[in-house]
Amino acid sequence: MNVTVGRRTRHYRTVTFDSQDNAVLLIEQRLLPHKFEVVSTRDFRETARAIRDMVVRGAGAIGATAAYGLAQGARAFRGKAIAGFSRHIDGVYRTLEAARPTAVDPVNAMNEVLHAMSAGKTVEEQQALALAAAEEFANADVKHCEAIGRHGAPLIRDGMRVLTHCNAGWLAFVDVGTATAPIYAAQAEHKKIHVFCDETRPRSQGATLTAWELSQQGISHEIIADNAAGHLMQRGEIDLVIVGSDRTLGHTGEVANKIGTYTKAILAARHNVPFYVTIPLSTIDWRLSSGHDIPIEERDQTEVLGAWGTLQTPNGKRGTRDGRRVFIRVANPSSNARNPGFDVTPPELITGIITPTGIFNPKELWTKRHRLGWREQA
Amino acid sequence: MNVTVGRRTRHYRTVTFDSQDNAVLLIEQRLLPHKFEVVSTRDFRETARAIRDMVVRGAGAIGATAAYGLAQGARAFRGKAIAGFSRHIDGVYRTLEAARPTAVDPVNAMNEVLHAMSAGKTVEEQQALALAAAEEFANADVKHCEAIGRHGAPLIRDGMRVLTHCNAGWLAFVDVGTATAPIYAAQAEHKKIHVFCDETRPRSQGATLTAWELSQQGISHEIIADNAAGHLMQRGEIDLVIVGSDRTLGHTGEVANKIGTYTKAILAARHNVPFYVTIPLSTIDWRLSSGHDIPIEERDQTEVLGAWGTLQTPNGKRGTRDGRRVFIRVANPSSNARNPGFDVTPPELITGIITPTGIFNPKELWTKRHRLGWREQA
Repeated sequence: MNVTVGRRTRHYRTVTFDSQDNAVLLIEQRLLPHKFEVVSTRDFRETARAIRDMVVRGAGAIGATAAYGLAQGARAFRGKAIAGFSRHIDGVYRTLEAARPTAVDPVNAMNEVLHAMSAGKTVEEQQALALAAAEEFANADVKHCEAIGRHGAPLIRDGMRVLTHCNAGWLAFVDVGTATAPIYAAQAEHKKIHVFCDETRPRSQGATLTAWELSQQGISHEIIADNAAGHLMQRGEIDLVIVGSDRTLGHTGEVANKIGTYTKAILAARHNVPFYVTIPLSTIDWRLSSGHDIPIEERDQTEVLGAWGTLQTPNGKRGTRDGRRVFIRVANPSSNARNPGFDVTPPELITGIITPTGIFNPKELWTKRHRLGWREQA
Repeated sequence: MNVTVGRRTRHYRTVTFDSQDNAVLLIEQRLLPHKFEVVSTRDFRETARAIRDMVVRGAGAIGATAAYGLAQGARAFRGKAIAGFSRHIDGVYRTLEAARPTAVDPVNAMNEVLHAMSAGKTVEEQQALALAAAEEFANADVKHCEAIGRHGAPLIRDGMRVLTHCNAGWLAFVDVGTATAPIYAAQAEHKKIHVFCDETRPRSQGATLTAWELSQQGISHEIIADNAAGHLMQRGEIDLVIVGSDRTLGHTGEVANKIGTYTKAILAARHNVPFYVTIPLSTIDWRLSSGHDIPIEERDQTEVLGAWGTLQTPNGKRGTRDGRRVFIRVANPSSNARNPGFDVTPPELITGIITPTGIFNPKELWTKRHRLGWREQA
């Protein structure tokens, strides 16, 4: 999407590749929203470190980064011996895989690259195929998000006020995003939209990343405390809810997403506000048969006990330069916290699931699985 | 309630009076939870300033502070001329009233003191009556909270996990509190209790004040993000919800309270978790006939865009000494926020309203108004 730095506006992807320098270019997401910067990783080890250290985060974005990292590693190989090349590729793969061990996206993405490479006979051919496959993966991610936008845009009528939770925006993918895709598509159709961004405690991705994205695209928006959506719905100020998903069960239509999503779905149902979930097909889990089996990560309690931000003096002037962030303890020093990272929303609370191939009732995912990229999973 | 400083544990009220020094003693709430300190105001102007500057906050607490402040002002008068004394009292009253112009509690409390004083014939008699009435007001506040505890304690069974929102604890009253009163009473009956404290963004009173209170009383508790309660209820980990109220409509049973209360009530109803509201009779509004007529304060958006806390170095050591708090900007710098401070919960979501005179169905407040301190209001 477009980013304005100073007076200059240009289009950026979250992840791209510089084939001349054999470098992966990444938006440094840890500095956002306080500073925009693109960093370049010079070899696959730096790329793995960028994934591990959260320079880049979000399903599609880390998938593409790993795919590019594998190509980057392949292209750095000097020599013609295919056996040595294969051993080298194994090492690159394992290094990138270990950077975010619980995520499935880097592995899936790299497997696609490996599969494409297997058609090459020489090292040089495989190197070229690796980069082509990585580019293909990134382009497909963008196309899927654009398709979600096309399917979702008609749901947004002119003048609508849309609530979103957390960040399933373009920063989490290569471009466009999922939950934001219908919003960007509706904007392109010149519809007037206002977005309420749930702050999304404890990590505040709504207040930081989603709000930053929307401000860059010039979309009217306001941040609200996670406590405020119920009141706004009661007063008729929210017309539509759109969220992303970390994992959607193909068998049941249950949706795992950032903690608080379930609450928003219950609020929406009570106030007859349509509640939509946007997903790329890669996040559908075709194996689990119950949401109870989805492991809910209990994250570090520090996140709940404090907050990250930039220091400000009481008169509102910034106390730290260059967007450097500090951590403050908000909570009572002797108290502990519980910090479940995700929750599971049942299908009866979901109006529809917007995918790259169309909008589905959550309960019909299984019967329509052949249109949804289903394949037997181990 | 008891507070432990170092190795010493003793009982404190939020507000007391030192008749020897003619001083109001207040727990300095702006330093909590990071530091416990009792401050002393030497004259009624300092007392008014303490109310204005939020040294003391909470309905019952500022009521008692104003009552004591009026007595303090009366007792500082030198002379025997009743006319001069009356003019002096007028000035004291107006100064204290202006300290928190939107609150009704200081005015009600001071009117009780004035009424008691009118029985005195000399300046000296009126001065004595003023202090006696202020003490009476503070003692009645404690008795009301204790009665709420007695009525509410049987609802808490051994082993229960209780959710609370914001702070309606003893810091908001003279002692004991309202939402916390049944919890403290159940603890006194040696019941095992675990409390989940909603963080309560944007001002985090749950993470700061309620968590501090519970830790001082040695009650097992955990802070959770406001987003987490739905998930915990879904997993069967919350047995009961108890909250306070800023205003309860006698005609309809609608309850205005801190933003997010309404959401918790909807979650509780969906998961069949009992939802109780605790109120002193003074917060019942017998005039308004609809919750739509309750003005919802839109507070400063800065609260949503950042957070207050103590600076910490990455290794967890505190970076600022003596509990001094700093403000950080969390949100995207160019974004704005909406910040409704309260919401209104309809009676059908409320299991019962716990008052000093018993537990009532919210829909029967009007028919039982004669037991609830009803009087024709202007």
